[in-house]
Amino acid sequence: MTHEQLTASVAIASWKTAVARTDKVFSELTEEQFLKEIAPGRNRIIYLIGHLTAVHDAIHTILGLGDRLHPELDAIFVAKPDKAIEPLPSVPELKKHWTEVNGSLSKKFAGLRPQEWLQRHMAMSDEDYAKEPTRNRLSVLLSRTNHLAYHLGQIVLAPR
Amino acid sequence: MTHEQLTASVAIASWKTAVARTDKVFSELTEEQFLKEIAPGRNRIIYLIGHLTAVHDAIHTILGLGDRLHPELDAIFVAKPDKAIEPLPSVPELKKHWTEVNGSLSKKFAGLRPQEWLQRHMAMSDEDYAKEPTRNRLSVLLSRTNHLAYHLGQIVLAPR
Repeated sequence: MTHEQLTASVAIASWKTAVARTDKVFSELTEEQFLKEIAPGRNRIIYLIGHLTAVHDAIHTILGLGDRLHPELDAIFVAKPDKAIEPLPSVPELKKHWTEVNGSLSKKFAGLRPQEWLQRHMAMSDEDYAKEPTRNRLSVLLSRTNHLAYHLGQIVLAPR
Repeated sequence: MTHEQLTASVAIASWKTAVARTDKVFSELTEEQFLKEIAPGRNRIIYLIGHLTAVHDAIHTILGLGDRLHPELDAIFVAKPDKAIEPLPSVPELKKHWTEVNGSLSKKFAGLRPQEWLQRHMAMSDEDYAKEPTRNRLSVLLSRTNHLAYHLGQIVLAPR
């Protein structure tokens, strides 16, 4: 493997590990448990699965990987906090979106050439990138993986 | 910047961002708040700062960066769950260790040559590494960054 291939493999594996752990936790929760708050007065898990799906879906756009699948989720799960909008989409519907979005990303990630991970992401101009070359696709992937880990740490706290 | 330099910079920056966020949260908590549970019946923050410090300290060993600073923390914060051992070291002492350990790691990371991030970590034999070249220093760094993000997501939930 070249250096570029190794790097891309390691970063994608880290992402996939975090997604697989989250999948496992979601698969073990009942619909009723999705309606529980992660801690008193905090987000419900149903909100967090929608939030994570919307943030992951937006990776399509920021990495230039084609159209996102569910732009309608942003208004509910990114622009607004939990409990601002009711009713939310159903748990089975959100689980389906979650799986579709991550499946789509996995395929698109596999289609990127290793060196493309070090190219600028789409929210940056060429001029900005010349000044800050570390703001590339790889940094977006690491940042979103950390974001997922952050919320997974919360999701596992909800009362079973 | 070469590909190797860019990769190392991005991964180290992701680590440092997570550490800086955690530092900020710790700096805003009173000693009393460190004694609170992140959720009813779960870990206290004082346990999590010790746990994170011990896990980060062990990065010295697994990445071959020299002796770790506080091996004595493992028995309290890794081998045992919260509330198994009392009393714990004091909050000011643990905050000092946390800062020292991450400061030491930052320096050691800066001293690694970019290509060294893709070499095997110390818990692997040469034979295993030949089979799984993605189990390298970079993968350890990403894994520990995710581990930190996971617990940071929990720490911010403790009642203020």
